[in-house]
Amino acid sequence: MAEAVFYLDKNGPQSLQTQLRQRVIDAIVSGSLEPGVRMPSTRRLSADLGIARNTVSLVYQQLVADGYLAGRERSGVFVSDALFEAVRIGRHREERQPSAVSPWRSRLQTVVRTEGEGRAPPNWELNPYPFLDGAYDASLSPGPEWRDAVRSTLSAQEFAEWSQDGGELDDARLVHEIRTKILPRRGVQAGADEVLIVGGRRAAFSLLIRAFVNRGMRAAVEEPGFPDLGQLLRLHGADVTPTPVDANGMVVDEIDPGAGLVFLTPACQYPTGARLSERRRRRLLEQAEAGDRLVVEYDLAASGGFTDKAAPALRGMDQVGRVIYVADLCDVLGPGLGLGFIVADADLVRELRRLRTLIAGSAPRAAQRTAAFFLSLGHYDVILGRQQRVLRERLNALRDALNYHLPQLVAIDPRSNGTAIWVEGPAELSTRQLANEAAKRGVLIEPADRFYAAPGAASSQFRMGVTAIPAGKIREGVAILAEVIRSLTQPSLDRLDPAAHAWMEGAALRERISGAKLLCRTAYGDPYEVDVLPDGRLVGKAGYAHEDCDVGSWWMEGDFWCRRWNEWSYGETARFLTVIDGDQIRWYRSDRLLFNRGVIKPNAAIDDEAIRANLAP
Amino acid sequence: MAEAVFYLDKNGPQSLQTQLRQRVIDAIVSGSLEPGVRMPSTRRLSADLGIARNTVSLVYQQLVADGYLAGRERSGVFVSDALFEAVRIGRHREERQPSAVSPWRSRLQTVVRTEGEGRAPPNWELNPYPFLDGAYDASLSPGPEWRDAVRSTLSAQEFAEWSQDGGELDDARLVHEIRTKILPRRGVQAGADEVLIVGGRRAAFSLLIRAFVNRGMRAAVEEPGFPDLGQLLRLHGADVTPTPVDANGMVVDEIDPGAGLVFLTPACQYPTGARLSERRRRRLLEQAEAGDRLVVEYDLAASGGFTDKAAPALRGMDQVGRVIYVADLCDVLGPGLGLGFIVADADLVRELRRLRTLIAGSAPRAAQRTAAFFLSLGHYDVILGRQQRVLRERLNALRDALNYHLPQLVAIDPRSNGTAIWVEGPAELSTRQLANEAAKRGVLIEPADRFYAAPGAASSQFRMGVTAIPAGKIREGVAILAEVIRSLTQPSLDRLDPAAHAWMEGAALRERISGAKLLCRTAYGDPYEVDVLPDGRLVGKAGYAHEDCDVGSWWMEGDFWCRRWNEWSYGETARFLTVIDGDQIRWYRSDRLLFNRGVIKPNAAIDDEAIRANLAP
Repeated sequence: MAEAVFYLDKNGPQSLQTQLRQRVIDAIVSGSLEPGVRMPSTRRLSADLGIARNTVSLVYQQLVADGYLAGRERSGVFVSDALFEAVRIGRHREERQPSAVSPWRSRLQTVVRTEGEGRAPPNWELNPYPFLDGAYDASLSPGPEWRDAVRSTLSAQEFAEWSQDGGELDDARLVHEIRTKILPRRGVQAGADEVLIVGGRRAAFSLLIRAFVNRGMRAAVEEPGFPDLGQLLRLHGADVTPTPVDANGMVVDEIDPGAGLVFLTPACQYPTGARLSERRRRRLLEQAEAGDRLVVEYDLAASGGFTDKAAPALRGMDQVGRVIYVADLCDVLGPGLGLGFIVADADLVRELRRLRTLIAGSAPRAAQRTAAFFLSLGHYDVILGRQQRVLRERLNALRDALNYHLPQLVAIDPRSNGTAIWVEGPAELSTRQLANEAAKRGVLIEPADRFYAAPGAASSQFRMGVTAIPAGKIREGVAILAEVIRSLTQPSLDRLDPAAHAWMEGAALRERISGAKLLCRTAYGDPYEVDVLPDGRLVGKAGYAHEDCDVGSWWMEGDFWCRRWNEWSYGETARFLTVIDGDQIRWYRSDRLLFNRGVIKPNAAIDDEAIRANLAP
Repeated sequence: MAEAVFYLDKNGPQSLQTQLRQRVIDAIVSGSLEPGVRMPSTRRLSADLGIARNTVSLVYQQLVADGYLAGRERSGVFVSDALFEAVRIGRHREERQPSAVSPWRSRLQTVVRTEGEGRAPPNWELNPYPFLDGAYDASLSPGPEWRDAVRSTLSAQEFAEWSQDGGELDDARLVHEIRTKILPRRGVQAGADEVLIVGGRRAAFSLLIRAFVNRGMRAAVEEPGFPDLGQLLRLHGADVTPTPVDANGMVVDEIDPGAGLVFLTPACQYPTGARLSERRRRRLLEQAEAGDRLVVEYDLAASGGFTDKAAPALRGMDQVGRVIYVADLCDVLGPGLGLGFIVADADLVRELRRLRTLIAGSAPRAAQRTAAFFLSLGHYDVILGRQQRVLRERLNALRDALNYHLPQLVAIDPRSNGTAIWVEGPAELSTRQLANEAAKRGVLIEPADRFYAAPGAASSQFRMGVTAIPAGKIREGVAILAEVIRSLTQPSLDRLDPAAHAWMEGAALRERISGAKLLCRTAYGDPYEVDVLPDGRLVGKAGYAHEDCDVGSWWMEGDFWCRRWNEWSYGETARFLTVIDGDQIRWYRSDRLLFNRGVIKPNAAIDDEAIRANLAP
C-alpha cells in the first residue's frame, strides 16, 4: 500500500478536495505513485491528513472516473495500470514548463563545463571498437576476486566493525595494506599517520585545492593534462598556468616561477604516457625548495594504468615533505568503488583529515573494508599482473594495426608508457570531425584537444586507448578508422591518376627493384630497410639497431609488385603500383591511394649468412 | 617477497651503498617492510636498481649484522622479526623530528576545528553508557538485511553493470527506489531527473555551498544547529547569521533579511528535535519568494532519526522550486555506506551533477547498487519500523530515569521529536566539566555548546541521545550521571543539616500528611498531584489532563516517610526526610540532599470511584 503523505494547505485559496486531487495526480504523473500501487484507505488517509473522510472518498471517486485510479472489488483503490508512460511524461513536462525562470539560477556561482571532461561517453559499451583509455572492459574487472573480498566483509563481526561511524578515522586495515602492498612497489615509505583515504582522484584534488589554494594563487598544471583539474583550480580562484609536456614529461623549466603549487603525473604522464626524466625530477624538487612550492604528484602507476615498469614515485625522492602523493585505487578495483588515497607528512595529514571531515566526510567504510580484504587476500598483485599483461598485448596489437593501416596518414608519438597511443592525424583534418565520423561506424577515439587548456590546441591529435577494447577487435577497428580518415582527407592525399598511367610497368619495375635495397620509415618514425633479393626473397630489418627482423617473398602480377612477410603486416599478401622518381619510390594501393614512400638503392646486401643466422624460417 | 622499489640518486653526494642501506632501514623502521618479509634477491634488486650486485650484497650483509635483516639458509634474506615495535617507532620519530618547519604550513589556507564537530568520540563503544545521538549501536544495524542486499549485487551480471564507470550518471535503480519508497512517505514528488545521489550530508552541503555561495554572501543557519555547517559556509566566504530555535523550530521571523540562502531542519530540528510549526513553514516560503532566497532543507526524518510521526517535508509545499531537499541514507543503512541525495528541479540537478563530477566524482556505484537492493527488497520499511520502535522505547526509559534520578537538578526541554533529550543542567555547573567527569565513569553526554556558533552559549545545557545505548543501561547511566552532578554541585544544593535536625518527626509528619493532597512538578515541568489516603494508599495523577495515573502505598519508618508506586519510579520503595514550612513541603533523600519540593494541601480527594475505574490493580 502506498505510504504517501500529501501536503494540504488548509488556509489556501483552493478547496481541500481540489488540492488533494491535484497532489494525487502530481504523484501519479511524476511516477512517485506507480501503476498498480494500492492507495491508502479513505479512513486512513483522512486520519493522516486530518480532513473529512468524505473528502477523500469524493477525490478517489473522481480519479477513478478520470482513469488515474482503478477500484478493484473488495480490495481497495489502485493507481491505474492503463495510464501510458507517454501520457505521464507528457503531462509531467506540460505542468512543469510554465514555472517561469528558475529561482535558483541567479544565485548559481559557476556553470561547470563537462564536455571536455575526459570520461568515456555514456553507453560506450555499445560501440564495437571503443579505443578508450581508462574505461575498463568487463574482462579486466576483478569479478571473482572482488566477490571474494566482499564476502569477507559480510561476517557479523566484520559488519559490526565497519558499519560503525568511525568518526574521522580511516579503516586501519586498508591503511596497512596500502602502506605494505602498494607503496613499497612505488618506492614510497609511509607511516600509518601519513596516509589519508579519500573518495578517489577528484576528491583528493578537491581536498588539496581547498586546503592550499586562495584567490589569485598561481598553480602550474601539465598541458595536456587532466581537463577537469584546471577547471577545479579556477573554481577556487587559482590562476592556472599550463606547462608543456614533451617526451620526457612536464617541461619543468617552463613552470611559472610564481607558481606556489604544481600538479603533475611523473611516472606516467596523463594523457600522453610520457615518463618524467631523472634530470627533471631532480630539477623539479630543487625548484620547489628554492621557490617554496608544493608539488602534488598523481601516480597512475600505483593502480595499474601503465604497461611498462614504472619509475618510482617522486614522493620517494622527497626528503623535505614538499611532495604530496595522490593515487586512485579504481583502476585495479574498478570505478564502482570510489577510493583513493593521499600520502603526506603526518601533521599535514592531520589537517587534511579535519578538512575532509568538514567538506566530504570519511570515505565509505564498507568500501574501505572491502578494498582492505581485496589487498590482503593477495588479489591486487594478481589482478595488476593480469591487467598489465593483457594491456601490453593490446597495445602491441594497436601499434601493429596503426602501422599497417595508417602509414603516411598518421604519426605516432613514441613516448607512450601508459595504456594508450597518442596519434597525430592528417593536419588538414579536424579530429573532432574525425571522431564524430568514426563514432558513426562504431569506432571511438578521443580527440586530444580536450586535454588541452588552450583552445584549438592539438586539433589534429587524438588518443587511442586499449583498456576497453579486446585485442581481437583492434585491427578491425583501425581498418575502419583508416577508411574514415581516407574518406575525409581524399582530396588532399597523394593519389595516383589512373588516366595518366604514371606507374611503372611490370617488366621495368622487376628489373629495377630486383636486388635493390629499400629504405623506409614506419608510422612511428622508426627506420626499416628491405633487401629485395633477386631470388624472390625479402629481408626486412627494422629499428635503429635492427632489433626487429623478418623475411618474406616478392613477385610481380602484371604491373603490381606483390609481397608477403612471414610476420610483418599480419603475414598477408599486399599488392602495389609503384612510382620511381630518381631514388624516390612510392607505393600505391589498388585504390590508387598512396601507401608509403621510401628511397631505393641498387645495392641489396645479399648477406646470406646473416639471413641464415637471424631469419631462418 | 617484498616488491620494494628504492629510489637512489646516482649523482648524489652519498654512495649508492650508503643510500641503499638508508632506504632499506627507512622502510623497515617506518613499517613499510614488515618483520618476516622476504627481501628481493641481490640479483633482482641490483637489476631493478641498475647497480652492481655486489653493492646490494654488501648492504644486505651489513643489515644482517646490524639486526635489521636476517638470513635463513637457502631461502634468502628476511626483515628481522626481532626488531621491536618500540625501537621502530622510536627511530621513526627521531628521524622525522629534525625536519625543521613543515614546508606546507605557510601555504595552508585554513585550519579546521573539529573539536566541536558533533560526531561521536572515537571508541565511544568502550563506554558502558553512551548517551549519544546519531551513533548507532550494532543492535540497530541492519546486518542480515544488508548482507542480503550485498549478496544481490555480487552476481556476475550485476557486477559487470555497476563496476563500469557510469560517468556522471547515478544508479537508475537507486534513484527509482528513492522516488518510490522514501520520498512519497515524506510528501515529496520527484521525477528521476530531479534526484541526485551524493556521498552523504556533508557532501550534499559542500556541493550546494560550492554552487551558491560567494564571498560575502549572507547565509542563515539554525542556532543551535550542525556545528560544521557554519564552518563550511565560512570556509567558502559566506557571512553566517545564526537564527534562534525554539519549541516550534527555527524562528523564521528572525532570519537575517539579507540572507540569500537558508539552511534548516524543519521536520525534526537538529539537534533539539523541535518541529517547525505550520505557520512558520508558510512564512518561510513567503519570505523566500519575497527575498529571492533559496532554502536548503535537511530532512532527518527521511532516514530514521525520529521517533514520532514526522511532518511532511517543506519541498512538498514548495510550488516554485525554492526549496532544495537533502537527506542522508546513513541512519537506516548505517554510516559505513556514505550515501545521501538531493532533490531539486531538474535543471538545477543537471548543474549540480556537473559540479559534483568536478569536485567529487559520482557516489560509489557499488554502494548505490547495494542501497538500491536494500530498498527494493523491502528492508528499508522493516528496519525503519524496528529502529523507531526501539528508539521510542529507549527515549521513554530515558525520560523516566531523568525524572526519577534528576528532579530538581535538571530541566528537560519538552520539544524532542527526535532521538535525544535536551537537558538544562544546574546553572552553576559547566557542562564541559560535567561531561568530562561523567566520561570518567563511562557516561557520555554531549555538551550543547558545540551546536552553538556563539561562544559560551548554552554552557549548562547538554543532550542525551538514545541511538547508541541499550534500554537496559539507561537507568544505571542516569543514576551515575546524577551522582556526578551532585558531587560537582553539592555546595550550592539545598541540603538538610543533620546537626540542626530540622526535619519533622515521624508521628507529627504522619498526622500532617495523612489525608493530604500533594502538588508537585516532574523534571519536565509537568504537574502531578498525589492523594495521600489515610488508609495507606497513594493515588497519583500526572499531566495537565491527568493522562498518566498510578496507585501506590505509603508508610512511616521512624522519621522517614516511605512510598512505593505500582509503576512510577520503577515501582521501587523510596524513603525521605520531610520538611514542611507553611504549605511548602520538601523531601530529602537519606544522604540529606533535596529530592523534590511541592505544596501540601489538607483535602485529599478520596474519590474511590475514580480509583476503582482508572487504577484498579
